[in-house]
Amino acid sequence: MTESEQEIEGQVRYPQAPDAGAAGDPQPWGEKTRVVGSRQPRVDAFERVSGSAIFPSDVMLPGMLHAAVLTSPHANARVKSVDTSKAEKLSGVYAVISRNTEDANPDWDYGSDYPGKLFYDHCRFEGDFVAAVAADSSYRAHDALRAIEVEYETLPFVSDELAALESGAPEVHDGGNEAGHQSYSRGNIEQGFAAADVVLEETYRSASEMQTPLEPHGCVARWEADRLTVWESTQGVFAVQSKIAETLNMPLARVRVIGHYVGGAFGSKLRTDKYAIAAAMLSRRSNRPVKLFMTREQTLVSMGNRPPTTMTIKAGAKKDGTLTAIQFKGIGASGAYKAGGTSLLDWLAKDLYQCDNVSTELTDVYINAQPARPFRAPGYVQCSWAMEQMMDALAEQLDMDPVALRLLNIPDGTQARGNKPYTTDGLRLCIEQGAKAFGWDQAKAAPRGNGHLQRGVGMAAANWFVGDGGPPSTVILRLYADGTANLNMGASDIGTGTKTVMAMVVAEEFGMEPDAVQIEHADTATTQFATPSGGSKTVPTEAPAVRRACLAAKDRLMDMAARQLGRERDEIIFAGDRLRTADGLESLAIPELDELKKQKVVVGVGERQPNRQDVSITPFAAQFCEVEVNRRTGEIRLLRMLGTNESGRVINRLTWDGQVIGGITMGVGYATTEQRVLDGPTGKLCNRNWHDYKLPTALDVPAEIISEPIMLSDEQANIVGAKGLGEPVTIPTGGAIANAVYAATGIRMRDTPINPVTLIDPLASQEG
Amino acid sequence: MTESEQEIEGQVRYPQAPDAGAAGDPQPWGEKTRVVGSRQPRVDAFERVSGSAIFPSDVMLPGMLHAAVLTSPHANARVKSVDTSKAEKLSGVYAVISRNTEDANPDWDYGSDYPGKLFYDHCRFEGDFVAAVAADSSYRAHDALRAIEVEYETLPFVSDELAALESGAPEVHDGGNEAGHQSYSRGNIEQGFAAADVVLEETYRSASEMQTPLEPHGCVARWEADRLTVWESTQGVFAVQSKIAETLNMPLARVRVIGHYVGGAFGSKLRTDKYAIAAAMLSRRSNRPVKLFMTREQTLVSMGNRPPTTMTIKAGAKKDGTLTAIQFKGIGASGAYKAGGTSLLDWLAKDLYQCDNVSTELTDVYINAQPARPFRAPGYVQCSWAMEQMMDALAEQLDMDPVALRLLNIPDGTQARGNKPYTTDGLRLCIEQGAKAFGWDQAKAAPRGNGHLQRGVGMAAANWFVGDGGPPSTVILRLYADGTANLNMGASDIGTGTKTVMAMVVAEEFGMEPDAVQIEHADTATTQFATPSGGSKTVPTEAPAVRRACLAAKDRLMDMAARQLGRERDEIIFAGDRLRTADGLESLAIPELDELKKQKVVVGVGERQPNRQDVSITPFAAQFCEVEVNRRTGEIRLLRMLGTNESGRVINRLTWDGQVIGGITMGVGYATTEQRVLDGPTGKLCNRNWHDYKLPTALDVPAEIISEPIMLSDEQANIVGAKGLGEPVTIPTGGAIANAVYAATGIRMRDTPINPVTLIDPLASQEG
Repeated sequence: MTESEQEIEGQVRYPQAPDAGAAGDPQPWGEKTRVVGSRQPRVDAFERVSGSAIFPSDVMLPGMLHAAVLTSPHANARVKSVDTSKAEKLSGVYAVISRNTEDANPDWDYGSDYPGKLFYDHCRFEGDFVAAVAADSSYRAHDALRAIEVEYETLPFVSDELAALESGAPEVHDGGNEAGHQSYSRGNIEQGFAAADVVLEETYRSASEMQTPLEPHGCVARWEADRLTVWESTQGVFAVQSKIAETLNMPLARVRVIGHYVGGAFGSKLRTDKYAIAAAMLSRRSNRPVKLFMTREQTLVSMGNRPPTTMTIKAGAKKDGTLTAIQFKGIGASGAYKAGGTSLLDWLAKDLYQCDNVSTELTDVYINAQPARPFRAPGYVQCSWAMEQMMDALAEQLDMDPVALRLLNIPDGTQARGNKPYTTDGLRLCIEQGAKAFGWDQAKAAPRGNGHLQRGVGMAAANWFVGDGGPPSTVILRLYADGTANLNMGASDIGTGTKTVMAMVVAEEFGMEPDAVQIEHADTATTQFATPSGGSKTVPTEAPAVRRACLAAKDRLMDMAARQLGRERDEIIFAGDRLRTADGLESLAIPELDELKKQKVVVGVGERQPNRQDVSITPFAAQFCEVEVNRRTGEIRLLRMLGTNESGRVINRLTWDGQVIGGITMGVGYATTEQRVLDGPTGKLCNRNWHDYKLPTALDVPAEIISEPIMLSDEQANIVGAKGLGEPVTIPTGGAIANAVYAATGIRMRDTPINPVTLIDPLASQEG
Repeated sequence: MTESEQEIEGQVRYPQAPDAGAAGDPQPWGEKTRVVGSRQPRVDAFERVSGSAIFPSDVMLPGMLHAAVLTSPHANARVKSVDTSKAEKLSGVYAVISRNTEDANPDWDYGSDYPGKLFYDHCRFEGDFVAAVAADSSYRAHDALRAIEVEYETLPFVSDELAALESGAPEVHDGGNEAGHQSYSRGNIEQGFAAADVVLEETYRSASEMQTPLEPHGCVARWEADRLTVWESTQGVFAVQSKIAETLNMPLARVRVIGHYVGGAFGSKLRTDKYAIAAAMLSRRSNRPVKLFMTREQTLVSMGNRPPTTMTIKAGAKKDGTLTAIQFKGIGASGAYKAGGTSLLDWLAKDLYQCDNVSTELTDVYINAQPARPFRAPGYVQCSWAMEQMMDALAEQLDMDPVALRLLNIPDGTQARGNKPYTTDGLRLCIEQGAKAFGWDQAKAAPRGNGHLQRGVGMAAANWFVGDGGPPSTVILRLYADGTANLNMGASDIGTGTKTVMAMVVAEEFGMEPDAVQIEHADTATTQFATPSGGSKTVPTEAPAVRRACLAAKDRLMDMAARQLGRERDEIIFAGDRLRTADGLESLAIPELDELKKQKVVVGVGERQPNRQDVSITPFAAQFCEVEVNRRTGEIRLLRMLGTNESGRVINRLTWDGQVIGGITMGVGYATTEQRVLDGPTGKLCNRNWHDYKLPTALDVPAEIISEPIMLSDEQANIVGAKGLGEPVTIPTGGAIANAVYAATGIRMRDTPINPVTLIDPLASQEG
C-alpha cells in the first residue's frame, strides 16, 4: 500500500471564518502548525506493540473466576425449564445463575419496546441468554454449561425481512412484525417524476454484516461491598455505567467502569449487553471477581450486526442531468428486538444531492435473529450501496460521466439537515480532487479489455453528520512545572488513535512533543465525563474541549508571566513554548515561571461548547476504484482505490490515513466477502466462525489504497476545525466497487456481496 | 475508653465573621448542619476491615520481583569496595546494583547540604545504602545480600548532639558539626529578667523518638518503556513524583505515583527516600516490576526520627504571674545530613504565651545517625516538654495555679506569628473548658495520698499553625444525574479519615449521604494536584476546595432549575437535596432536572484560595492528666487524660476523637516509653525491633481518654471553618504527664522518657 504525499495544488485552505464564534473566543490555528497535521505514531505504541497494554480481556485479578454463558440454540423457543443442579455440583463451579435464581435475574430491556429479563422464558433469537456459570477455569465453566438441562418448546420463526412482512408469517412479538415506520417528503414526488426525461427504478439488497471485533464482547466484574467495578471492552465507559446502574438499580457513584484499551469496536460496543449484568450477578453470588467474555462464536451469533435491508429507489433526471425526483423505500430488520434496523437509512437519499422532490419511506421489521446494533456508518453504508449505483445507472442512461453528474447535483445544504447551509463545499472538493488524483478521466477512457480479464472504474460519494457530543465533555489539563502535562478525559480510544490526537492538540498549544503528555482516559471513577466514542464524533467533541483546557491553563501562565515580568497582562503572548512580551524584549520558558515552580502545576478546565445550530456541520467523502474481473472465475481483483475526505482539519495524518485504509477495507468486506447466512430450516447462523464468515484478508483488499485529504480547517465546526472521519471513510466503498464491476462487466450487482459465487451466473448468462 | 458527649454549656459558637471574605464569597455553614459535625464511620471502612484495601505493600504485579537493600552496618565508614559477583550468580537473582553499576547509581541529595550518590563511597550513618538486589522471592533477595562482599574502612563517629559540639569531636562532614544556627529576639531579654520577681532556669532533654508506622517505607516500581509507575506508601504522591523525576532526570509526565492507602505515616513519608530510586533502578535493569519495602529493622534504623534535643529555658515572671522574659536555647541533632533537627523548636517559646521579652537560639548539629524527619508536630512536641514544665515550675514558685498562670498570659497574637491577631480566643477556651470538664480544681485539691501510691494532676497547653497548602489544591466534583457524586482530589488519606471528611462536605452540600460519594485520590496521573498530607493541613486545605467544587456544581444545577421552571436565576435556592423557588411554590429534586438527565453530569471545579494574610490562623489545644505513681516500682499509671482542642469546626466528630486518642497515645509513648538507644562503643542502634523499641500498648495508655472539642467554626480560616487537628493533639501530652508526675511525687523529670528505669532512682533519693 502506498499513499500519495502530494497535496493538490491551490487547495490547501485554512479559512478563518469571520463568524467563527462569539467575540473573545479562541483564535483558530493558522495554516502553519507545528505538530497538528503531521504524522505522529501512537503515544501508546510501545504498550500496543510490546503487549503490555492491558485490554479488558487481559485483566487478571486475584481469585478471579471465569464465566461462560449458555445461550438459546433456537431461533425462537419458549424456555420451559432449566435444571442447573448437575452443573452446580461440578468441581470448581462457584455460581450458576438462570431464571431459577430470582435474585440474579433482573429486568432487562433490549431496546425500549419489549422488556424482559436477563434470563427470560422466551428466547426470540438464537444466542439469547439462558444461564451463566462461573468456575475456577474457563474449561470447567464450559463443562458446566453442558451439564445444564434445558427444556425448550421450539416455535415457528421468521428470518427474512420481506418474509416477515407477509401475512401469516410467524409473529416475533404479538401484534405483527412491523417494528417501526417512518416517512419523509419534500416537494412533490409525482411532479418530479413528470418533469424527468429519464426515470429508473431498481431494488437493491444488502446482506447482514456481522460485527466481530478482534477482542470479543465482555468484561471483568468485581464487587467490593456494595461497589461494583467493571473492566469492559467498550466504546463508552459512562454508557456502560449508566446501563448497569439502571439495570441493577444502583447509584451511579457505586458503579465504576474502566475501558483503557478496546480491541476493536465498530458500534456494537457503544452500549453494554447482558454479559455485563451476568458477570456482575455471578461475581456477587461467588464473592469473587468474574471474567465473562463471549466466545468468538457467540460474538458472531448474538453481539450485533448491520441489519439486512431491501431498498427500492426510483429516480428521475432531466437530460442535462438535473435530478428531479428521488423516491426511496427501505425495509430493514432490527432482529428480535427493536434496534434501529432502518436508522439513518434514507439520509443519503435525502441530502447527498440536490433534488427538490424527495420522498422516503422506511419500515423496520422484527425477525427471529440477533438484535442489530449501530455498525460503522449505520444506514449510510446500505443506502450508499443503492443510491450510488442508481446515480451510476442514471449517468449511463443520460450518457454523462458519473463524476460530472454528481458535480452537477452538488447540494447547497438547504434541503434536509434542518435546511441549514453546509459549512464547506467539501463534497465538490472531494469529487473534483479525488477524480484528479485518481486520474479518473484517463482510467475511464482506458479500454475494458477483450480477454477474460476485464477492468473498469467506479466511484461513489458520501456525506456524514457530526454529532453534538457536548456539553459536558469536560477535560482537565494539568501542566507540570517542568513543562510536561497530564490530560484527563473520559473518552475511549477504540483503536482510532484518540489519545494521540489529543496529545497532539496539547503539544501544539504548549510547544511540546506529544509524548510529553500523560493521558488518563476511559475510567468513570478517575476521568471526566465523555459520551461514547461513536458517530465519528470523538475528535470533534473532545479535541475542542482539550484545546479549551490548554487555553485556560495558558491563560494562567500568562498571568504569572505578567506578574513576574512586571508587565500588563495584555503585553504577554504565548509563542511556541515560551511566554514573551509583545515588544520582544523579554521571554520566559514555562519552567522559568516562579509562581509555577512554587505551586507545581497549573490546571486548565475545558468544556466542549455546543455545535452552532445555524449551519450543517458535515464531513464529505468520495472514493474511486479500479477493478479487474476474471470472467472465467468470477473473481474480482481490486486494483486500486483512492479515498478523499473533507473532515475539516487533519490533526494526525498518520491516523487519518489509517482510517481511510481501514474504512475501505471494511467496505471491501461489506461489498465482496461478508454475508450473514441463516439456515432456512432452523433459522440458525451458518457462518459462525472466522473460517465460514469471510472477513477480507490482505489478499482481498486493493493492492494500492491512497488517502487524499482535503486540506482545510472547518472553523465553523469547532475551535480545532476538525470533523468526524471514522464513518465517512467506509460509506462509499461498496457503491464504488459495484460501479467499477459494472464498468468492467456490464453487470449491475444489486445485492451484496459481489464475489465469484454471486457473479459467476450473471457472467455465464452474458456469455449466453 | 469513654468519651464525653456533653458539650459545654453556652460555648457552642458558630460565628459568622463579618470580614469572612470578599463579597460574593460562599456563605458559611450555620450552626445547624446535617452531616458535618456528626459521627461518620469511614467511607472505606469495608475495604479496611475486610482486607480488600490494597495498600502499596499489598500490590502484586505479574512477574514482580522482590528487592532487598544492603545497608551500612557502621555508624561511619568508607566503602572501599563492593563485590557483587557471587550475588549475581545466585539462582533467581535478576539484578544487583551498587556503586559499581554506574548507570544505576544516580546523584542523591539527602537534604540540600552534602550531595552524594544513591550508593555512596562514604556511609555516614548506620543504614545508608550500599547495594540492592532484586530476585524472584524475598528470601532469595535476602540470601543474595549475604553474598555481597563489602570492604569498609570504619571511621570515628559521634552520636550525641552535645558531644558533637565539643572540640575534637569526630567531624561528620568536613568543616565542623554545626549544621545550622538561628536566633530570634524581641524586646530586651535582660530588662525582662530584671523586671521579674521570679527567674528560673532549667535544662530539658528529649530523646530521639523513632517513626515506625505499621506499613514500612517502600514501594513497587514498574517501567513501561520510558514511563515509570510507583505505588508508594506515602503522604504525598506528588512529592514522590517530584523527587523521583528530579533524581532520575525524567519529565514529570512520565512518572506516575499511586498511594491509595497508607499504613501509617507521621511525617517520615512526606517525601520519598533512596528505596524508591533503588526500586526504579532495579526494575529498569531487570525489566520487571520490583517491590522494595524496607524491613521493620531498616525502618527503625534509617527511616526517620524525631531528633534528640537539649533545651535550656530561662524564664522570669512578676509576682502576679505576668511573664517578663523567656530565653530559650535549643540544640537538636539532624543526624548525618541536614534534616531540620531544630525545625520549629522555639515556636512555642515565642508565642504560646504573651511575653514582651523573648530571645531564642537554635543550633542544629550533625551526628553519625540516620537523618531526622518531620515527626507529628516537629519541634513543638519537644519544646512543649520543656516549656510547659517550666510554666508548671513557675506557677509553683509563684504559688499560683498552673491553669490560672496560663490564663493570665494568654497571648493576643501580636507577638511573633507575623504580629497578626489570632482568629479566635481558642487557647483560653481550651484551658478554661478543659479545666472545667476535667474537674481540675477538685482533682488538684484532692490529696496526693500517703501510701506508696501517689496521685497528681498536670496540664499543658499548645498551639500549632495552619500551613497554606494552596493554591493549587484543585478538586473536581462530578454530580451524576441520579444525585450521587464523584470526587477527584490528589490528597492522600494517611489513615486520618480524609476521604470520609471530604465525602461529608459533599454530602452536606447536596443533602446526600457520604457513601453516595465515589472518591478518587492520591494518584498523580488520575487525580488533581495536592500538597502532601502533613502539617495538619489536609482538612483546612482540601475541604475548602471540595466545598468550592460543590458550590460550582450547585450553581450550574440552579441555572438548570431556573431554566426548567422559567424563573430568574436569583429566585432559585438550594435547600437540602432540592432546588426550590424562593417563593416556595415549586421545587425539583436533582434527578428531576431535565438538562441534567440529558447531559448526565455536571462538573464543579474547586480551588483552594490562599489563607488570609492579615490574621494568624491557629489551632489551640490543652490537655489534662491524672497519674498514679507507684513509689516502690517507679511505675506510672495514667488514670485519665482529657484533650480539648480548638481547631475550628468539627467535621467528623468520630475521626476528631480518633485523632485526640491517637495523639495522646503517641504523646504517652514520647513521654514514657520511647527512646532511641545508640550503642556507645559502635554507634549502632540497640533497640531495632518492636520488642526492644517500646511503643505504648493498650496497657500503657490512660484507661480514660476524653476528647472535648471547642465547638466553634473559624470563618476567618476558610470557607469550611476548620483548622488542623492531627498535630496539636499530641503536643501537650508529654508536658501534662511530666507535670502530673511532679504533682504526684515532687520529682521534676527533665529528660524523656519517664518510666520505672528513670524514675526509680529519684524516688529512692527522695526516700533518702
